[in-house]
Amino acid sequence: MDGLSLIGARRVAGSAIFHGIEAATGAPLPGDFSVTPPEALAQACELASEGFDAYRETTPEQRATFLETIATAIEARAEAIIARAMLESGLPQGRLTGELARTTGQLRLFAKVLSEGVWAGVIIEPALPERQPLPRPDLRSRQIAVGPVAVFGASNFPLAFSVAGGDTASALAAGCPVVVKAHPAHPGTSLLVGEAIAEAVATCGLPEGVFSMVQGPDHALGTALVANPHIKAVGFTGSRGGGMALMAVAAARPEPIPVYAEMSSINPVILAPAALADKGEALAKAFVGSLSLFAGQFCTNPGLVLALEGPELDQFLTHAAQALAQVPAQVMLTGGIAKAYQQGIATLQSQSGVEVLATGVESGGTVEGAASLLAVAASALLANPALTHEVFGPSSLVVRCRDTAEMLAVLEGLEGQLTATLHIVEADYPLAASLMPVLERKVGRILANGWPTGVEVSRSMVHGGPFPATSDPRTTSVGAMAIHRFLRPVCYQALPDALLPAALQAGNPLNLPRHQFD
Amino acid sequence: MDGLSLIGARRVAGSAIFHGIEAATGAPLPGDFSVTPPEALAQACELASEGFDAYRETTPEQRATFLETIATAIEARAEAIIARAMLESGLPQGRLTGELARTTGQLRLFAKVLSEGVWAGVIIEPALPERQPLPRPDLRSRQIAVGPVAVFGASNFPLAFSVAGGDTASALAAGCPVVVKAHPAHPGTSLLVGEAIAEAVATCGLPEGVFSMVQGPDHALGTALVANPHIKAVGFTGSRGGGMALMAVAAARPEPIPVYAEMSSINPVILAPAALADKGEALAKAFVGSLSLFAGQFCTNPGLVLALEGPELDQFLTHAAQALAQVPAQVMLTGGIAKAYQQGIATLQSQSGVEVLATGVESGGTVEGAASLLAVAASALLANPALTHEVFGPSSLVVRCRDTAEMLAVLEGLEGQLTATLHIVEADYPLAASLMPVLERKVGRILANGWPTGVEVSRSMVHGGPFPATSDPRTTSVGAMAIHRFLRPVCYQALPDALLPAALQAGNPLNLPRHQFD
Repeated sequence: MDGLSLIGARRVAGSAIFHGIEAATGAPLPGDFSVTPPEALAQACELASEGFDAYRETTPEQRATFLETIATAIEARAEAIIARAMLESGLPQGRLTGELARTTGQLRLFAKVLSEGVWAGVIIEPALPERQPLPRPDLRSRQIAVGPVAVFGASNFPLAFSVAGGDTASALAAGCPVVVKAHPAHPGTSLLVGEAIAEAVATCGLPEGVFSMVQGPDHALGTALVANPHIKAVGFTGSRGGGMALMAVAAARPEPIPVYAEMSSINPVILAPAALADKGEALAKAFVGSLSLFAGQFCTNPGLVLALEGPELDQFLTHAAQALAQVPAQVMLTGGIAKAYQQGIATLQSQSGVEVLATGVESGGTVEGAASLLAVAASALLANPALTHEVFGPSSLVVRCRDTAEMLAVLEGLEGQLTATLHIVEADYPLAASLMPVLERKVGRILANGWPTGVEVSRSMVHGGPFPATSDPRTTSVGAMAIHRFLRPVCYQALPDALLPAALQAGNPLNLPRHQFD
Repeated sequence: MDGLSLIGARRVAGSAIFHGIEAATGAPLPGDFSVTPPEALAQACELASEGFDAYRETTPEQRATFLETIATAIEARAEAIIARAMLESGLPQGRLTGELARTTGQLRLFAKVLSEGVWAGVIIEPALPERQPLPRPDLRSRQIAVGPVAVFGASNFPLAFSVAGGDTASALAAGCPVVVKAHPAHPGTSLLVGEAIAEAVATCGLPEGVFSMVQGPDHALGTALVANPHIKAVGFTGSRGGGMALMAVAAARPEPIPVYAEMSSINPVILAPAALADKGEALAKAFVGSLSLFAGQFCTNPGLVLALEGPELDQFLTHAAQALAQVPAQVMLTGGIAKAYQQGIATLQSQSGVEVLATGVESGGTVEGAASLLAVAASALLANPALTHEVFGPSSLVVRCRDTAEMLAVLEGLEGQLTATLHIVEADYPLAASLMPVLERKVGRILANGWPTGVEVSRSMVHGGPFPATSDPRTTSVGAMAIHRFLRPVCYQALPDALLPAALQAGNPLNLPRHQFD
């Protein structure tokens, strides 16, 4: 592993070096990784811009083949990728095997979306020369790619939200070249996946600038990438602070650009009274399973639970506390994340009115996170909104509500979220119905009788939501709708057929679905 | 005309007063207009928020009826509206009659769009309980309104881009309550139209907060409106400075929100050589007609013309100069706009290399703008990008290009634009084809053998484009696609039918079109 940056078809060295870190030990891993020099970053953006016009006008079938070629190239490297990702992320083999399948499945979903053609948004309005008082010219529009896109790899999904993750897949599908800033916690995993993409670019005969990958441990590189004038949109999954910093850079450019940042969510779960009475013990076990899965390092971790106080809730908490006390401490993604979790939990525990119900098995180590179950009265939470800030890791805060009005008040007070979950049986439907309006305003996905972790990559999925869950609630970073982030409409008026793009020509050579309005 | 603010169903007075100004004389018009007090603005936003959940869940048919009721109420007041708008804007009766028809046509277009239901974006993915390795839950998504929207009336379209203009129509169609900040240059026109909307709200039995209108001559009111936490999106048509100021306010909020600002465009027109040789004189006359129409006060005014130097261009310029010299000075929308135009032209004329080819008939008055035709060599323009800044009014700058490479360089150097126009005959197609990639990157609409003024309100229209033409090139402020600015997707996972919104229920009670993926 040479640790070089992938700048179009070239591999570029830098003078500064950094290393991958083994999550479980904090020790450096083999491989000297070059910090991408500023001039190489600039060249990656220049190449992306040079390749843009040609790449965006490849046929949907050509791009579909490209995405499938990437998937196949990743599968060919699966063993090496998973082995390296286990070391760099501390995540177990089974999880990473599933995540790799999700990553290739995502690429193939976008290949299918491209072939179907709805994404192209073709609208045709033929000329109406006899119309009164004025004739209508021939008008037709389609969606075209916005331009080169910067994608930031996420710490918590080293494959599915990283170099070849959903942001990259949807941007490449839309026709946008991509410059990836790899996450510094998994440089080796990123390089292996980046090589797969670069190989697919060459195999498919595409312009080299369609894909580049830069690496480095500090923020300057990402800032320079977002500030580069060739970049026209940004995809990011990470912390609220990180996302907001990129939003500020993007807004301050001479030409401001959109940032699609998926940032911060505590994913409220409502345990309705009849459901709690019917199946409290089973819910308690499933809840602890969801909150501690892979050390709770999910954007959709159930970090806030709302229920009406009473003996059913007490029983639920007893069962949950028993289950959680047995959860072993788990290695977290990075030492920094483990430390932030430990500090976040300590701060939360010290807040007025917060009870510590249970703590998982502690390891005493600095790279692990022990699960934590906390509770608080709704009145105390309403008085202290800091209690609703995300603590990334295996913890959850249960809010005891005196009545449904107080439950509603807590929900109304929340910031935007990725998800909200209702645990309900039929007797709870009236309560659930009364909560739906606020949930619809606050979140991107509402689910019943499940857990928010485990996001389906599909056509209707919304992994998004109002700020600060994301920077832009009008879209999603998971699922087929994500392609629309990287498209913009262009209208063609009275152009001769010979000058129209293939998507809009009379003969419909790309065989795209069309909306025609006579 | 009592000059009061429309705060929901109430009419509210303020202690400060301002007046409409007769564009042609600069004299105050009858009517004392209250500057909306801050607490009344806050109440308008509060009412919008209170009415939001009920309004967004009205049926598409209810909202369609509402939009049609507004159109009818405007038509009932047409005579008074046009009479007042003529005084306040200086625009002639014929133009305003057409603009009123366009405004009601826009409202009715969105009523039709609502009835068709595609806007709702319904996607259904039924549960797949047997799927391996994991079952798929039932997933379904739809588009819902983003929340209360702030709309800023534009100076140059006192009806079609104002109180009941495209931003308001598309936001109301999406299910968003609207708080309009009327343009201070036409408070009386705004009040008459606002009363029509308020009457329609009452007639249709909608929550009063669905519409409010605030008035005032200075920026503080608009800033407070955009900063109000109940507001979730902003529609604006106006100057680059104004749009960017609102973007900054929106980005600095604790919860940043999108601003759809349509700002600045010089709308390049390419006169290809064979077209110029074939029909230079006719083009010259049509060009002068387009640039001076209603004192050139259009976002789509053809402010920059590119052609290859040579005798055909010289002849075109001779004809254009002759025609332009006869154009009478026209009253501009406001004294401020007239002054800015006069100063802008003076600055442009003083730039190195700029030739004054012709000036229209000058009035010597302070409220009129005289047409102006300027020319410059492409090399001088490339050395001085300030020459491409918009001067709002009846002027255009012709760029003499030595060759097509220089023409391409000028186009590549331009900022984002609303439109680009190609005047071509068949012999010019190869040149036009070579320009298409850069035009597609730079503009929202490309047209052939016409003039960019006169924007069709239709399904495929894109009145948008890259910054600074707009703040967000992914959408349009004219035409049916504008509704998408005010919608966001929400996904429902495994919800019982009883809790699903009607749009997603098994029986499809709203009869919306659905995409189903089994």
